Amino acid sequence: MTQEQLDITRLEQQDKPTRTDNHRENGYVVGVDIGGTNLRLALTDLAGVIVAKSAASTVGIRDASVVIGLICEGIDSLLHQVSASRSALRAIAAGAPGVTNVEDGIVIATSYLMGWRDVPFRALLESALGIPATVDNDVNLAAIGESWAGAAKGTRDFVFLAIGTGVGAGIILNGQPFRGMGWTAGEIGYMLVPGTSDKPADVGAPGALESIIGGEGIKDQWRRIWSKDSTPLPEDLTATEIFDGALQGDALAQSILKQTAHLLANAIYNIALVLNCPLFVLGGGVGLHPALRNATSDILQGWGTRVKPQVLVSTLGADAQLMGAIRLALNIAAEHPAKMPA
Amino acid sequence: MTQEQLDITRLEQQDKPTRTDNHRENGYVVGVDIGGTNLRLALTDLAGVIVAKSAASTVGIRDASVVIGLICEGIDSLLHQVSASRSALRAIAAGAPGVTNVEDGIVIATSYLMGWRDVPFRALLESALGIPATVDNDVNLAAIGESWAGAAKGTRDFVFLAIGTGVGAGIILNGQPFRGMGWTAGEIGYMLVPGTSDKPADVGAPGALESIIGGEGIKDQWRRIWSKDSTPLPEDLTATEIFDGALQGDALAQSILKQTAHLLANAIYNIALVLNCPLFVLGGGVGLHPALRNATSDILQGWGTRVKPQVLVSTLGADAQLMGAIRLALNIAAEHPAKMPA
Repeated sequence: MTQEQLDITRLEQQDKPTRTDNHRENGYVVGVDIGGTNLRLALTDLAGVIVAKSAASTVGIRDASVVIGLICEGIDSLLHQVSASRSALRAIAAGAPGVTNVEDGIVIATSYLMGWRDVPFRALLESALGIPATVDNDVNLAAIGESWAGAAKGTRDFVFLAIGTGVGAGIILNGQPFRGMGWTAGEIGYMLVPGTSDKPADVGAPGALESIIGGEGIKDQWRRIWSKDSTPLPEDLTATEIFDGALQGDALAQSILKQTAHLLANAIYNIALVLNCPLFVLGGGVGLHPALRNATSDILQGWGTRVKPQVLVSTLGADAQLMGAIRLALNIAAEHPAKMPA
Repeated sequence: MTQEQLDITRLEQQDKPTRTDNHRENGYVVGVDIGGTNLRLALTDLAGVIVAKSAASTVGIRDASVVIGLICEGIDSLLHQVSASRSALRAIAAGAPGVTNVEDGIVIATSYLMGWRDVPFRALLESALGIPATVDNDVNLAAIGESWAGAAKGTRDFVFLAIGTGVGAGIILNGQPFRGMGWTAGEIGYMLVPGTSDKPADVGAPGALESIIGGEGIKDQWRRIWSKDSTPLPEDLTATEIFDGALQGDALAQSILKQTAHLLANAIYNIALVLNCPLFVLGGGVGLHPALRNATSDILQGWGTRVKPQVLVSTLGADAQLMGAIRLALNIAAEHPAKMPA
């Protein structure tokens, strides 16, 4: 698949049915978000309207063929809900939590539970379902989703920042996903900024930036400075609970929020310099917390710089990846017109 | 001018004359490099072979129309050398040391001696010379030059790092210059890395990174740690003289080289993460010094990281911008075929 074929805006002209207003008569597409703990599916008509959704657990699952089986089961259940058969399916797109070669449809590596290496996931989907498929990295899909239907709608260049356990970026340039020569553009969890170590972590270790501002990093920072005398809050808190504590006025929690926001502001500023990019959209379990967006934006706006990127919270939230997958599935459906009945 | 029209590889197919092997019969193009102290011109045939070069001082010159006058004088002198007239000129491209809107042909701002603001330089060139023109930022042109005929030949994605008094980057993605929404992509002199200040400098001040690893920054660092007892070298040295001292074994000069290389390695690593970019080419008065390339490359290769960008010294040296201008001028000439004689 070329950049050209992945044009995420083109379908807006092409998906208008010419013979009927009933998009469902023309078929359906499926978007899939494969996570380390959950598999989520959405069935949409060719106007991109979601008609059914489902979810299944992926905990303990390593085998790609088992994931394919779960997807097929999920699709059959979704089609059943709308009284349609598999012949109504036009295309499928799936997001994987790892480095993905979109051109060849191969998941090169996942860092999560599954530990995939060079899995030809597009071919597996196409052979299981008999419809055109595509596969992409989940953070890229989230960026595509926000670009199509979320906080970045109408913005030509922007960066989606996924801040969960890890930290990564999905980059949209000239309205197109920019994935990089080795499919790893946006690996900013490894970025070096003032406040991180002054050299990168070794292969396999969490990145310099994500080890401080990712979910686990924030918990670590909290435990490191926590003492019974310094806060009434417990020692064992998640990142979002710490941010909640900051909003409720806890000084220790506020110091963690401030540190996190400062490092994130440094990283955003650096990316904005390289890409001349005016908008950053925060997503992921930690990134969706409004306290982080507000603290980070305050720091960036307070600097006496010419470069002042805007920071917004994702409006699609946990659905960003799924919406990106739907967008790509709609694109593929448009590339492969349905056979007309004889 | 669209990205499409700026395709820097296309002409390689188009510039082969069909009627004759004598490229000069078909005309000439001019490349111009406008610097804070010098104006440099090159006249080439339509195969891109330089047939004459000239230079003039721009010291004390602020007025764009005076620069246009110098360019016209220079061109007439170059044409005279090859016994051709202005009617043989097919196109011209000029690089300016500042933010340049390539689409509209406007130099938005220069930070150097000239202090230009919103100068419609393309229109000025076209009206003075009566031929198609284009204008671009000089660092972008250097990147185009290295991509066409220098150290990055054949590399789809790479970054040219200009390290002189200031520090900036020219970015080539998918074989095309990436200039950014506001024409300021690659302003990495302002980057925040471990070892710089932990927030950006205010508008107008040198950037956090360039204030340490730019030419003036390196001189400042040297003067700050210099003492008669710590080195036999004089207090007043240029950046390249300090690097020469490091190569000759001076320990104090080596500490400056090491610090500069470490911060540069951090910046290169960060850019490589964002862009997934495998190659960095160093240019500019400071960046051309081989000691800096070697020290920076040693640091990057010594890290236990998966991301290991290659660092090379520009092979075009001070001609990189001029070669980029020639490349763009050849592209424009190809877009505007010469009128056939009646």
